[in-house]
Amino acid sequence: MVWCSGWKLASAVSNSGGLGLLGAGSMHPDLLEEHILKTMAATSKPFGVNVPLMYKETEKIMKIIALHKVPIVFTSAGSPDKWTGWLKEKGIVVAHVVSSSIFATKCEAAGVDAVVAEGFEAGGHNGKEETTTMALIPAVRKITTLPLLAAGGIGSGETMLAAMTLGSDGVQIGSRFAISEESSAHSNFKKLITKIGEGETKLTLKRLAPTRIVKNSFFEQINEAEQIGKSARELLKLVGKGRSKTGIFDGDLEKGALGIGQISSSINEILSVEMIIKKVILEYNIAKENLQKEERFSF
Amino acid sequence: MVWCSGWKLASAVSNSGGLGLLGAGSMHPDLLEEHILKTMAATSKPFGVNVPLMYKETEKIMKIIALHKVPIVFTSAGSPDKWTGWLKEKGIVVAHVVSSSIFATKCEAAGVDAVVAEGFEAGGHNGKEETTTMALIPAVRKITTLPLLAAGGIGSGETMLAAMTLGSDGVQIGSRFAISEESSAHSNFKKLITKIGEGETKLTLKRLAPTRIVKNSFFEQINEAEQIGKSARELLKLVGKGRSKTGIFDGDLEKGALGIGQISSSINEILSVEMIIKKVILEYNIAKENLQKEERFSF
Repeated sequence: MVWCSGWKLASAVSNSGGLGLLGAGSMHPDLLEEHILKTMAATSKPFGVNVPLMYKETEKIMKIIALHKVPIVFTSAGSPDKWTGWLKEKGIVVAHVVSSSIFATKCEAAGVDAVVAEGFEAGGHNGKEETTTMALIPAVRKITTLPLLAAGGIGSGETMLAAMTLGSDGVQIGSRFAISEESSAHSNFKKLITKIGEGETKLTLKRLAPTRIVKNSFFEQINEAEQIGKSARELLKLVGKGRSKTGIFDGDLEKGALGIGQISSSINEILSVEMIIKKVILEYNIAKENLQKEERFSF
Repeated sequence: MVWCSGWKLASAVSNSGGLGLLGAGSMHPDLLEEHILKTMAATSKPFGVNVPLMYKETEKIMKIIALHKVPIVFTSAGSPDKWTGWLKEKGIVVAHVVSSSIFATKCEAAGVDAVVAEGFEAGGHNGKEETTTMALIPAVRKITTLPLLAAGGIGSGETMLAAMTLGSDGVQIGSRFAISEESSAHSNFKKLITKIGEGETKLTLKRLAPTRIVKNSFFEQINEAEQIGKSARELLKLVGKGRSKTGIFDGDLEKGALGIGQISSSINEILSVEMIIKKVILEYNIAKENLQKEERFSF
């Protein structure tokens, strides 16, 4: 959710009955502080900050989060050992994002309050093992009694119900909110995402950090370099810096890295957060009712 | 299901309330004929043959199927245009396996009776677009009213219910039956599959025909060759012939290509087909009941 999830999106989600998250992955500490304050002004409901742990400024970010008493933190892209205790001492609820049940076990040991299990179909950074939501959620459910949120492939009420059926207690929706009206992504990006079809995103950069992006010119460049066996160092040079900003925030659809999930192929409209949540819950309840009513579900 | 699905497995599935399929992909025409006759002797229920269309002997195989009035054919790995009409003229029901909704549209045009949509998590041959079951089933459901079977990631009642929730009318179970008592796979293979964990299969051979196999020595060889940019021709030479037989049927777990789905990580027992089907249906019904009963499913 880098370059998508600022105060507008986070507060809209919280105001509409969800748990809004600020994406710290695309914010320097001072900008994050501004967004925290604006979110607090825009909603009286709980909200959280997602903190990818691989960035250098994590310590500064955590201090700002604690200073402003943000109630909930989702950590990702790193070990849950390092920050969970520190955050919990300050009364902050901690969820950690994992891509395997082994990492989920580590979350339990680290004392997190909830686990987000994210499948291969999710956008942006992704696990090396490539386990899909369908295979991952039951596996994580089996090894933990912690509250479990499913992520990856969830953009509708039917996919939400499927995820719940697999054993989750809730879902984390990315792609659908990334192109909501309140997302800070560029309108070029939002429009593109409403048009892309199946197979138009791919997990790439597997030698660096696996990332699902749209198959644009930037992707093709990377893909070609990988095919001919370029080293991680050469790939890193080719990627350069700020590619997500270039694509998602500045709207350069060819030079940018356009992180988005597979389920984007089913999203073809830009709606307000309130409307998205209403639609998803309505679809969820209809699908749940149909399960009981329709003969085809009886075995 | 190459080297797994002979007459014993197919007839056991049909006798237990499922639709058993013979896997023609690992049989020469005369052997297939023998298995068709044995299946007919072992069950009075309908059964089918899965025919991967990329093999040279397809014509001979189809003639044998028609000669013995096999009621149902599942075609895969090719266009549904070539054989659907021919089979339907003979009164045979035709299902075709697809990995995208575009191929599903082609199935409708070709006049097939049912579509099997198979996600990225499935074992063996797989689609190039890497769309997972979670993203694929709703997409295919949207473009066709044909009976739809979901495949990939389904090995339990919970995953079956999830697939049905996504829009399928039924499911195709591979991995779980591949290591059933009645599967003709070698016991070495079956035992290995009960032990492997998440992330221990991977989609490989993407430059030839994407195939999900266990990460053994054979996989590592291929993987290394791909990493340093070997050509399709060089890869083909490295793969050689009969690798699936070597692994699955002969039980050489290092030299063989061990095709199996991601959901194998959740399968840890070798059971009879009857017991597998009973368990899956029981789990399905419990999961369906829980959806209504448990507070956590209410939104």
